[in-house]
Amino acid sequence: RTTSMAAAFRVDKGNHRHFMEKEIHEQPEVISHALSAYIDFIENKVSPAATAIDFSRVPSLAISACGTAYLAGLIGKYWFERYARLPVEADVASEFRYRNIPLPKEAAAFFISQSGETADTLASLRYCRENGLAIGAVVNARESTIARESDAIFPILAGPEIGVASTKAFTCQLTVLAAMAIGAGRMRGTVSETEEQALVRHLVEMPRLMAGVLKSVQPQVEGLARDLSRCRDVLYLGRGTSFPLAMEGALKLKEISYIHAEGYAAGELKHGPIALIDENMPVIVIAPFDRFFEKTVSNMQEAAARGGRIVLITDTKGAAACGDLQTMATILLPDVDELIQPMIFSLPIQLLAYHTAVFMGTDVDQPRNLAKSVTVE
Amino acid sequence: RTTSMAAAFRVDKGNHRHFMEKEIHEQPEVISHALSAYIDFIENKVSPAATAIDFSRVPSLAISACGTAYLAGLIGKYWFERYARLPVEADVASEFRYRNIPLPKEAAAFFISQSGETADTLASLRYCRENGLAIGAVVNARESTIARESDAIFPILAGPEIGVASTKAFTCQLTVLAAMAIGAGRMRGTVSETEEQALVRHLVEMPRLMAGVLKSVQPQVEGLARDLSRCRDVLYLGRGTSFPLAMEGALKLKEISYIHAEGYAAGELKHGPIALIDENMPVIVIAPFDRFFEKTVSNMQEAAARGGRIVLITDTKGAAACGDLQTMATILLPDVDELIQPMIFSLPIQLLAYHTAVFMGTDVDQPRNLAKSVTVE
Repeated sequence: RTTSMAAAFRVDKGNHRHFMEKEIHEQPEVISHALSAYIDFIENKVSPAATAIDFSRVPSLAISACGTAYLAGLIGKYWFERYARLPVEADVASEFRYRNIPLPKEAAAFFISQSGETADTLASLRYCRENGLAIGAVVNARESTIARESDAIFPILAGPEIGVASTKAFTCQLTVLAAMAIGAGRMRGTVSETEEQALVRHLVEMPRLMAGVLKSVQPQVEGLARDLSRCRDVLYLGRGTSFPLAMEGALKLKEISYIHAEGYAAGELKHGPIALIDENMPVIVIAPFDRFFEKTVSNMQEAAARGGRIVLITDTKGAAACGDLQTMATILLPDVDELIQPMIFSLPIQLLAYHTAVFMGTDVDQPRNLAKSVTVE
Repeated sequence: RTTSMAAAFRVDKGNHRHFMEKEIHEQPEVISHALSAYIDFIENKVSPAATAIDFSRVPSLAISACGTAYLAGLIGKYWFERYARLPVEADVASEFRYRNIPLPKEAAAFFISQSGETADTLASLRYCRENGLAIGAVVNARESTIARESDAIFPILAGPEIGVASTKAFTCQLTVLAAMAIGAGRMRGTVSETEEQALVRHLVEMPRLMAGVLKSVQPQVEGLARDLSRCRDVLYLGRGTSFPLAMEGALKLKEISYIHAEGYAAGELKHGPIALIDENMPVIVIAPFDRFFEKTVSNMQEAAARGGRIVLITDTKGAAACGDLQTMATILLPDVDELIQPMIFSLPIQLLAYHTAVFMGTDVDQPRNLAKSVTVE
């Protein structure tokens, strides 16, 4: 199966200028592929593949990963807490491994790594193994050390990712974690059969919605990228799962456009970063019309009142609710369920970083100083 | 007692140019004062004030706070996990309150707030109250809403803090949390009587050590601040408790000097931010000679190899171990136990932000856009 997987993706750029661009546009297809492994499309429920660990017996979860995979894990934490009512300890692997975290041995631990070879992630896996935890690997490379040393493997099925800045691996990690969280909720009785069906239906909509978004936002994102390519600093804000997504947006800009972008919980704005805001620092706000919307918009207005130029990434309902707010740009996405917002909202974020880097003329697929797989500490 | 406290500190700048400078220099005195409430100096053990909550019965802790107080809580998390073997969920209050975190009702929750009136922190307190948790308030203002709504109050005894950028409140919060973590460890049998005595002796050394550091680092920090005041971006790195401290160092620079400084876990450097490093972005590395030292130095060398100008904040042993590494500046602190490193290493970080802001001519005590107490969301 691994062989057939690899063969299914031609490892060249096709009609794209960079691997990163190709991988961004592959997402509807690879997400579809990942869904087919984790979703039973006939019954509208999660497949057994998503629950290869018995979540009904674990008191808590630990998630350890690095970089983009850590941010996927952080979004996973929100989901496992919400849908499965499981407390989750999520930390960057380089801290996790040295913290001597007290972990109940009945707990399960997940290690997220595209390559399956990330040194710090592997070390934290071994720490959990020694402490008797059930180990799950959320990896792209199934023949990797992290996969081999795990009790259960959750392949993300993204196909080869060549661009150093992760895109499709991120959304595939999210897709798998979402299916796992729903499955865990079912096993623990915190998600009903009807709720499962509704959530699964949202997941199933993703490929179609993603294909639409990739097409619809392209021209606007290119225009905005031209402006951003002249900036040295950017602030990215969000609440709820849009907070880790804001950090991912900032990380993408850092990695390939060398813009000093920083992701922040929107609610923390007034506790420091608002002092930075002036007309030289665009503020990108991820604000879908969800239960945080009003609060996030209020933070956005504070930033605007201090002269900050706002880029608002929202949905149809959000844009309508904002009224006549002046922004540098408003990127409009379809109204979707909270569960799949992080995957849908990932797309403009990735495209924005990509096109900004292209305008700046950086080496998009091989950014300076970075390696695809960090196999040393 | 509150009245006598307030009277003990004259609320004027004394011989200092700004309240912030005065408050930085007050730290040996206020830490001494805080210690006298939480430490039994005769028996070298933690006083009952530190264990006003029965830590032997709680399965886990939750900590919620904003801004600098959150970063104090994050350092507290490392301590409670290490010394008391208690799992800790620490989050910024604006996320904590909306996440529907599954918290065991037998758990205890701490809310850290200088003013005791921070809106999001208070809302997360009420969430925990509704869920039946034991509530502790780590506050400076004892007559505050957060204090009033708590089961146990842990006053930090810092005296009035006027400067918007928190300094002495931060180190007093840390001092109280350290005493609480040791006390929790004793109650849970994870810290022996001998260990308690050793740890308490380290705490007791702080005022003397702090007074020495405030004097010794001053000239060097002023020189360095002149260079930093010309920078627009800074990266702050650390591991272990030096990671939240790096975030605090970055927050201080943001707040009063409007430099876009970002704190990062040193181990995450290679997973993104290293792409940003060039001669225009100084990298400040907090690296005491502890069990993370070698790893942090290795990250520092990577940054230096990419042209980054390094500011190393270390101790005597660390400087000796670094050999002939070229830095922009090396700030030398005394060799101290890991427990009190965050408090001692806070001083050059605060002074650096302060003097940088003075060079830049910003309004140090009333930085733009910021309020001392954030009583709205």
